[in-house]
Amino acid sequence: MSTLRLALVQLAVGAQKAANLANARSKVLEAARAGAQMVVLPECFNSPYGTQYFAQYAEEVGAGGPCGESTEALARMAQEASVYLVGGSIPERAGGDLFNTCTVWGPDGAQLAKHRKVHLFDIDFPGKIVFRESEVLQPGDALTEFGTPWGRFGVGICYDMRFPEMAMVAARRGCIAMLYPGAFNTTTGPLHWELLLRARAVDNQIFTAACSPARDLAATYHAWGHSTIVDPYARVLATTAEAPDIVYGDLDLDLVADARRSVPVTTQRRFDLYPDVAKQ
Amino acid sequence: MSTLRLALVQLAVGAQKAANLANARSKVLEAARAGAQMVVLPECFNSPYGTQYFAQYAEEVGAGGPCGESTEALARMAQEASVYLVGGSIPERAGGDLFNTCTVWGPDGAQLAKHRKVHLFDIDFPGKIVFRESEVLQPGDALTEFGTPWGRFGVGICYDMRFPEMAMVAARRGCIAMLYPGAFNTTTGPLHWELLLRARAVDNQIFTAACSPARDLAATYHAWGHSTIVDPYARVLATTAEAPDIVYGDLDLDLVADARRSVPVTTQRRFDLYPDVAKQ
Repeated sequence: MSTLRLALVQLAVGAQKAANLANARSKVLEAARAGAQMVVLPECFNSPYGTQYFAQYAEEVGAGGPCGESTEALARMAQEASVYLVGGSIPERAGGDLFNTCTVWGPDGAQLAKHRKVHLFDIDFPGKIVFRESEVLQPGDALTEFGTPWGRFGVGICYDMRFPEMAMVAARRGCIAMLYPGAFNTTTGPLHWELLLRARAVDNQIFTAACSPARDLAATYHAWGHSTIVDPYARVLATTAEAPDIVYGDLDLDLVADARRSVPVTTQRRFDLYPDVAKQ
Repeated sequence: MSTLRLALVQLAVGAQKAANLANARSKVLEAARAGAQMVVLPECFNSPYGTQYFAQYAEEVGAGGPCGESTEALARMAQEASVYLVGGSIPERAGGDLFNTCTVWGPDGAQLAKHRKVHLFDIDFPGKIVFRESEVLQPGDALTEFGTPWGRFGVGICYDMRFPEMAMVAARRGCIAMLYPGAFNTTTGPLHWELLLRARAVDNQIFTAACSPARDLAATYHAWGHSTIVDPYARVLATTAEAPDIVYGDLDLDLVADARRSVPVTTQRRFDLYPDVAKQ
């Protein structure tokens, strides 16, 4: 289990939920046929991204198995493709609250994890983009990991990438990668998307990957695209532009230990001078 | 005080200490004539870099003023140039111990800070570079800041850049920049030098700068050069290649608040889910 073929599905997401789910299924099966053992879908893969859409597309999301149209489709496609499936995110309804929620599924269709976006995307670039998820969403209250035959993986959603502590905690607990369904935009994307992925990788000597929707200039929100996989030396292993695509990376998992032998920051930290952010 | 002209002197460092000090003085005065208000010298600016050299070039270093040939020269050149001077680093002797030590001087020649490298440079890239500062050096036991009319600055030395906690602590305590005299090499430089500077900048929304010696292919250690200044949006403001040079940047200090308004991570952190690394 020293190599993992990871696929990021940079999906074209439209206004029809059923079409989005069917399109996701088709791409997950295509990735599996190409040898992918783990597949990641983008943030908000069943709905256009925008605060005006979340309530309309929201579904209940359980922690012990599928319980709505989208999670049922995810469980089925994971099993059909026989892959570990990081199901991007969907708007979740829980009582009167809405969340931005990622679910993870095993190749047997069992649910492995549920992550509610912890850091809501509230930004304000005057004249460029103002966006406030917190107008309609509630934040999650937990960090999330899941186990696989290749090791443990941490999960964050999009804006969670900006908070280094999440990846630090995951890596120090033993995760070998952080996976981020995300949808940066044409302002923040060129500034920070790849930088943040490479920063999390170099500081924690883990793999990182972020999966974006494809860009749709007819939509209200223009996703950056550029789904990217980074290795534990912070080298870009695979990436793409903004069109629909599947990004594949063969992850040599020995690189985690290799990077940590070369530059042994994991044993050189000075927790006598600053607290260990993984210790609560 | 909303703009600061910062200069990084990418010094050609040779085997003669007196020549290194004279060369540093000449370049600090040149930078001041070009309008620099703060000048940074590189790591190990008075000595070739290498564990075999540190004992021979080491001097005592006080905390309250100059007390050896090199710190006397630094205090004098800060005053002569009337600049804030981050005096790179020199090998420090303290009793039987050696340290890698940065001193900071005000335009009146007064000593403002002393930083002993906290994280010693012990790396092992098989077939490329093995280096173990810890064979001859002791690590410092404190994080370091100093105040100026433009705001507070944090200081680290080279390998300290790899430990994000130092910059996180400094920024959360109110520093507007991290300054790193450093000497990456031709293996780690292209991999990580600029990435680490940009990572510290984007995560903390501060300016970052690293000042390297020029590359000397006749020396045993081949410094990467590429002295670089990065702004709080993590954009490279000024940089250079490997030859001797002075890198100038006009720091628009309003960008710190501007970046924090645009992407307000400083108020969005979830310390309920992970500890605040700035709280001891």
